[in-house]
Amino acid sequence: MTNHKSFGSDNHAGAHPAVLQAILAANAGDAVAYGADDWTARATASLRAAFRTEGEAFFVFNGSGANILGLGALLRRHEAVICAETAHINTDECGASERLLGTKLLATPAPDGKLSPELIAPWLDGRGDDHRAQPGVVALTQSTELGTCYTLDELAKIADFCRASGLRVFIDGARLANAAAALGCSLADIAEHADALSFGGTKNGALGAEAMVLMRPELVADVPYLRKQQAQLASKMRFVAAQFGALLDDELWRANAAHANAMAQRLADGISDIPGVSVAHPVQVNAVFAQLSPQHIEALLGRDWFFHTWDERTSVVRWMAAFDTTAEDVDAFLADIRETARFT
Amino acid sequence: MTNHKSFGSDNHAGAHPAVLQAILAANAGDAVAYGADDWTARATASLRAAFRTEGEAFFVFNGSGANILGLGALLRRHEAVICAETAHINTDECGASERLLGTKLLATPAPDGKLSPELIAPWLDGRGDDHRAQPGVVALTQSTELGTCYTLDELAKIADFCRASGLRVFIDGARLANAAAALGCSLADIAEHADALSFGGTKNGALGAEAMVLMRPELVADVPYLRKQQAQLASKMRFVAAQFGALLDDELWRANAAHANAMAQRLADGISDIPGVSVAHPVQVNAVFAQLSPQHIEALLGRDWFFHTWDERTSVVRWMAAFDTTAEDVDAFLADIRETARFT
Amino acid sequence: MTNHKSFGSDNHAGAHPAVLQAILAANAGDAVAYGADDWTARATASLRAAFRTEGEAFFVFNGSGANILGLGALLRRHEAVICAETAHINTDECGASERLLGTKLLATPAPDGKLSPELIAPWLDGRGDDHRAQPGVVALTQSTELGTCYTLDELAKIADFCRASGLRVFIDGARLANAAAALGCSLADIAEHADALSFGGTKNGALGAEAMVLMRPELVADVPYLRKQQAQLASKMRFVAAQFGALLDDELWRANAAHANAMAQRLADGISDIPGVSVAHPVQVNAVFAQLSPQHIEALLGRDWFFHTWDERTSVVRWMAAFDTTAEDVDAFLADIRETARFT
Amino acid sequence: MTNHKSFGSDNHAGAHPAVLQAILAANAGDAVAYGADDWTARATASLRAAFRTEGEAFFVFNGSGANILGLGALLRRHEAVICAETAHINTDECGASERLLGTKLLATPAPDGKLSPELIAPWLDGRGDDHRAQPGVVALTQSTELGTCYTLDELAKIADFCRASGLRVFIDGARLANAAAALGCSLADIAEHADALSFGGTKNGALGAEAMVLMRPELVADVPYLRKQQAQLASKMRFVAAQFGALLDDELWRANAAHANAMAQRLADGISDIPGVSVAHPVQVNAVFAQLSPQHIEALLGRDWFFHTWDERTSVVRWMAAFDTTAEDVDAFLADIRETARFT
Repeated sequence: MTNHKSFGSDNHAGAHPAVLQAILAANAGDAVAYGADDWTARATASLRAAFRTEGEAFFVFNGSGANILGLGALLRRHEAVICAETAHINTDECGASERLLGTKLLATPAPDGKLSPELIAPWLDGRGDDHRAQPGVVALTQSTELGTCYTLDELAKIADFCRASGLRVFIDGARLANAAAALGCSLADIAEHADALSFGGTKNGALGAEAMVLMRPELVADVPYLRKQQAQLASKMRFVAAQFGALLDDELWRANAAHANAMAQRLADGISDIPGVSVAHPVQVNAVFAQLSPQHIEALLGRDWFFHTWDERTSVVRWMAAFDTTAEDVDAFLADIRETARFT
Repeated sequence: MTNHKSFGSDNHAGAHPAVLQAILAANAGDAVAYGADDWTARATASLRAAFRTEGEAFFVFNGSGANILGLGALLRRHEAVICAETAHINTDECGASERLLGTKLLATPAPDGKLSPELIAPWLDGRGDDHRAQPGVVALTQSTELGTCYTLDELAKIADFCRASGLRVFIDGARLANAAAALGCSLADIAEHADALSFGGTKNGALGAEAMVLMRPELVADVPYLRKQQAQLASKMRFVAAQFGALLDDELWRANAAHANAMAQRLADGISDIPGVSVAHPVQVNAVFAQLSPQHIEALLGRDWFFHTWDERTSVVRWMAAFDTTAEDVDAFLADIRETARFT
Repeated sequence: MTNHKSFGSDNHAGAHPAVLQAILAANAGDAVAYGADDWTARATASLRAAFRTEGEAFFVFNGSGANILGLGALLRRHEAVICAETAHINTDECGASERLLGTKLLATPAPDGKLSPELIAPWLDGRGDDHRAQPGVVALTQSTELGTCYTLDELAKIADFCRASGLRVFIDGARLANAAAALGCSLADIAEHADALSFGGTKNGALGAEAMVLMRPELVADVPYLRKQQAQLASKMRFVAAQFGALLDDELWRANAAHANAMAQRLADGISDIPGVSVAHPVQVNAVFAQLSPQHIEALLGRDWFFHTWDERTSVVRWMAAFDTTAEDVDAFLADIRETARFT
Repeated sequence: MTNHKSFGSDNHAGAHPAVLQAILAANAGDAVAYGADDWTARATASLRAAFRTEGEAFFVFNGSGANILGLGALLRRHEAVICAETAHINTDECGASERLLGTKLLATPAPDGKLSPELIAPWLDGRGDDHRAQPGVVALTQSTELGTCYTLDELAKIADFCRASGLRVFIDGARLANAAAALGCSLADIAEHADALSFGGTKNGALGAEAMVLMRPELVADVPYLRKQQAQLASKMRFVAAQFGALLDDELWRANAAHANAMAQRLADGISDIPGVSVAHPVQVNAVFAQLSPQHIEALLGRDWFFHTWDERTSVVRWMAAFDTTAEDVDAFLADIRETARFT
């Protein structure tokens, strides 16, 4: 990496000191493996409380693991999943859902990465026709892969539609913290619109820790076996649980997310008057999708800034802020964006 | 857990201090995610050297993940796996191989958990008959689930047989370190008899880190996709790699394993003259399988020692030593075994 | 094939004339595809009646297809299947259950191919342990692959045990007709002990037609989708249904099966006094498993009789009778068995 | 069904008399099961010749079975499939490819149901990125689900592009006969642009018989196992093979297809001057996609004509001709279309 702060992704950041501290503290003698330890008991209790679920929380290794576990818990054997075309499960997991669950993803073009009852409804036309894939779950991402965020009202509308239509709702919450921080709501306020959801720790300051929270108690019994079969059961689980312990303590997750969101907002504000640079999607959490000329992109990369070109065809880049991005990082980046703008 | 050292499993231990230190050191600013970082580059280079492979090493989260990745890399789409009935993939992964790979395990009764050409050969009778499962891979465990260890000569015989029969060899090496320490050989000395193998860090002192080492360069290209599909690609991979960095440095893995092996041997030696207690399998690495009366087991558990009853029918228990088991731990345990022996 | 009647398998026979007649009769103008036709409606109604099910009957192409459909309907996503080691799904479908359902088969040595509560019970030891495969279904074969037949009382005992243990029962009924004929009972008398079962037409005189009968009405809704996904939905289904129509008419299936059974019995009776030839399993349906010397086997094959050596190690052969095996066929075979016996 | 000839689908037709005759003729005593019979040997030889393949031909039960078998033979374990959004495998098999092969379908909007190098190319952007699905096969349908037909030149361009890009080509040939008849070419002329393809008998006059023809000899060895695992191996295979024998004899398949094509053309010609009725896709084989008002559709259905509304939103219907559709059938239908046109 370069000397500049990376704007490439929120997982380019390291771990939050409190997370590391919790890991060190958990290294206290023996503990029974596979989750029968005190750290896991405490952290799952905290998660159940934070999500106000009568179901259960399960720790897994990564976001794909959480998605597979949640979808697998909700899907009947033959069912398909409705998702946005831009959903991580559709574009960034190398086909894991199809491979591990055997399910079909019904990918739906969705403005700003957000589904709605109107976008979901047409997939129900084939209900009852055994030639057609039968949707069983709607998978949302909150906040979305395009840096946008469903309002609670939008979530409620989708949830109502789904319940009325016999569909279950899964929320990919790799950045659920950023959404809750942006909406100023609790995790439970979001979770009440879902049947299962993932809660990402890694992008929020963990070393590597994700949770799958199941809201429906009647589905809990099978999940331990699904997790084991999907190779997502941690041996020394206390070290995964301890990370969540740290993030949940005093809502550190919210502070981390709110800060990252604020830094993205600072970046978005800063570019608003730079000629040739425009925002491609509303900046609602910790990502700025900006459209600028290929030459401008080239010039910035030439100054050793690290970020991803999201869409070469439309010349859109993604700039992400992390829990440890500083105002100085943003301002230095802004200065270079402004300076290199003259090349466009 | 109780105040006693656990003899329940080597994964009841925490992490080795050097591993934690390496994690702290890796928390140095940004790093590109998913393995494109310096720690991963260095640790995979070390693994390639240690295994003398022209293939590649891949980090994953846990042992099941390593097994699935290795088997998936070696198997053709329709093929089955020959393994010992006692193999971890057959008895302790909740059917993960069948679920994630769709493969059939041809479970074979094997004395002391060890396969041999004689035990493998009968499965080849159905070759060419499209009704029969077609074995493509033989999966060994080294050291085995029963605390035994293939000699290099035994491995060579199996490997020769397999090559001559068009079978590939996978070694589940969750405790490969213990085997290499016991045999006094290098990791490469074992690896030369395999087409792919896993190398376990977790039971050796890591927080949670496993590797899959592919010995056949022509199969390397597909593995990154398999790993991602199987949800085993770590986001902040430097923290997995750093753990291996610590274990590989000056062969810390060997010291840890040799110590655990020695502690098991001390325990085995200690019980040799205790009446009513006998060893059920040769003690070759870090586990002692002992047969003692149900009342004796009860008495020991009553004194707050923690271990698993392996087979209730034969009244056999498993006692495992870890990298951090001390001679004092063993002696204290022995004293109680001896004392409670009078209840039998 | 040779001029002799084949004793190789009951599927070496062609189709019963009534079956062919029914196919010709069904070729009457247009019919809606995929089962929405009159022949399918009538034949499924007949099956529902014959099995006294409030569930449903589904036509598929072959025995493996019926097994996969039935098991898939009964299994939860993570569950495993207990079966006899000799079960067709375990030994003769090339791993189809593992591949298509991702399920693990818990293969159990079973005398004469028959399971019992005593043989099933040990698999329940791992219940609730997420490392162990979790049995959800017990798969029986009636009549078995070894030519034996569960009594209704044996079935009842297994069914009672399974219901009490939260296990469902699937019966592979590729030769269910032979069993019902042997037991002198109705199909429903057997079916009441199952949650789902297959009913084989092909070995009974059909061209190629199998049914899966689901006894539990609450599971019916998903099956059409499972069948379609498993590529077992026939386009011009009337031609499959018509075959069952013919077999169900006046219980032609029973006449065919009873005749085949009788021919096997005639064969078994005939060999009883031939020196060096003994019966390896009770002859209860249409197969005779006989043990005779390798030289004797050689001599019979040399006279152009066609049959399979079941187990080369024990020198056991399988002789099967079909719906169209005649007493003359059996007697001619017996004459040659007797004559060649002197070579042993 | 009504008294009118169905225009609903070409699989509403029964079987061609020659096919039934071949089945009756094949019912000649015993034959070894599972394909080791003379009918299978002859029919596969005919197919190898007709497709000029050095690979092999395999019989299966239905179109989905043929698609799964062909795709499975061509795909590496982790790979995805590029197909038109309208492809049968994407819209009409209930997600069978995802379920049985675990593969992701990369569905691509394609005018008139036809892919092109330009439509395929963008999917290659993610090559080498382990987050992205990795396309390995391009699946075409010939003739397409929209009644259109790739020219040989179009196929050649796609094949060249795919070979240059390391992609294999699979052709879903459920209506390959109609395409070859329309193009006036041999089956081999089409097949030379594919690595594997299916050849549909059922819609061409068979009772139920499909073949998968593999053009690449080096992939042949695994296919028997894939077929068995996928539950597509027929027990009394002679009766499937015999159907193909009849269709291949004197190119009966071509006569059947050419006739169906001609009837569709007659229908298309007939509606060309009916006001309010227009053709939605070029009529190149045996289907007419027509756009007419909902009231007009209603009126036709009211006169007991049977056909499917393809797209309710655009008011497009599909009218298909079969091998046994007569000119009188078409003319009677045309008369009613014309008469009911006044209701629009």
